[in-house]
Amino acid sequence: MQIALLGGTGDIGQGLALRWARDTNHDVLIGSREAEKAAAKADEYESELAERGHDVDIAGLENAAAAAEADVAVLSVPAYYLSDTIDAVTDELDETVLVSPAVGMQRDEAGVHYNPPGVGSVTALAAKAAPDDVPVVGAFHNLAAGKLADLDADLDWDVPIVSDDADAKETVTALAEGIEGIRALDAGALANASEVESMTPLLINLAANNEDLHDLGVKFW
Amino acid sequence: MQIALLGGTGDIGQGLALRWARDTNHDVLIGSREAEKAAAKADEYESELAERGHDVDIAGLENAAAAAEADVAVLSVPAYYLSDTIDAVTDELDETVLVSPAVGMQRDEAGVHYNPPGVGSVTALAAKAAPDDVPVVGAFHNLAAGKLADLDADLDWDVPIVSDDADAKETVTALAEGIEGIRALDAGALANASEVESMTPLLINLAANNEDLHDLGVKFW
Repeated sequence: MQIALLGGTGDIGQGLALRWARDTNHDVLIGSREAEKAAAKADEYESELAERGHDVDIAGLENAAAAAEADVAVLSVPAYYLSDTIDAVTDELDETVLVSPAVGMQRDEAGVHYNPPGVGSVTALAAKAAPDDVPVVGAFHNLAAGKLADLDADLDWDVPIVSDDADAKETVTALAEGIEGIRALDAGALANASEVESMTPLLINLAANNEDLHDLGVKFW
Repeated sequence: MQIALLGGTGDIGQGLALRWARDTNHDVLIGSREAEKAAAKADEYESELAERGHDVDIAGLENAAAAAEADVAVLSVPAYYLSDTIDAVTDELDETVLVSPAVGMQRDEAGVHYNPPGVGSVTALAAKAAPDDVPVVGAFHNLAAGKLADLDADLDWDVPIVSDDADAKETVTALAEGIEGIRALDAGALANASEVESMTPLLINLAANNEDLHDLGVKFW
């Protein structure tokens, strides 16, 4: 399978790219608004993996070119770039599953707060911005990017997944579980995305307020 | 310490009462709108503990009488009874810490959704309804009541705690950690309560959508 990380030069994209390239046989494509930046990052990820004995090819392309190749495209951009990123690739989406991991947050003196867009969640915003025939899946909202990108760190985290498209959900579930230490969980329909997204500010607040906790993820039982 | 479970005849109150009575030396008081109902439940909890070899006294009282005795009063009532319950005990609160575990939720065909009151969270609603000098702490929102009340079940759950009052937060943290298998975590100020509360519908949706999961709690790492 071809996985494009749109905005894959950022932190969450880096972690997913490195781990998919290391743990699975999928082809990983790094997308960026600038092809050169994408290519440089792809080289950097390849080098890091090579140093660890993993000989993999990672391509770096402009976002639209990456999306054109992809079976699954992950919108690994901040929430405020989400709609623009979808607009930029929308003509290239052909049976491509779009994955939205972004969360809208706002900081004040008390900490970080969930700040969803008017449609209820960032995942719902992605669905609204995407063409009607493109399935949108919400996933990977609650992964600490730093730990995810640190290949020395063993993960043991759950990834709640929401979508209105059962096939797309199944595809992304399998992709998520391809990463060592990730368990994908079905969190229901797209309408349930806000409860998944709002866990991210909670994780940040918990890390800020508890001395021994940092780079938090979550496990349900 | 005297702990009153206001509305302690309900499911979350039952679990907390049984576990505090079993795992700590605190005095547990069951409160209800009807003293007789409270007394009957207190007897029932005592019997269950006696069968397991724990000889403890649990008192059952009308809510206001229980609050009058209490150092800490847990508002273990559904969200829509919260304000009425506080009103009914407000004259009895004297350096009493009020604890709010309730969550506002709404169900539709997609699952359960977080449905906070206009003030932002049920915990904030409790703070608004309580007298100004009564510290309010949000805690115990994310515990599966059935498993909590099943003394055969070993817990391994985190309890995020929010409050604007550092002393009250410390008191409730110690109380929470008195229960075997509970780790209390500081989730910051009362303004962070909605991110804690909104995890409860997520837990319910995850249990509904994943075959092997039920009675879910959460662990952060």
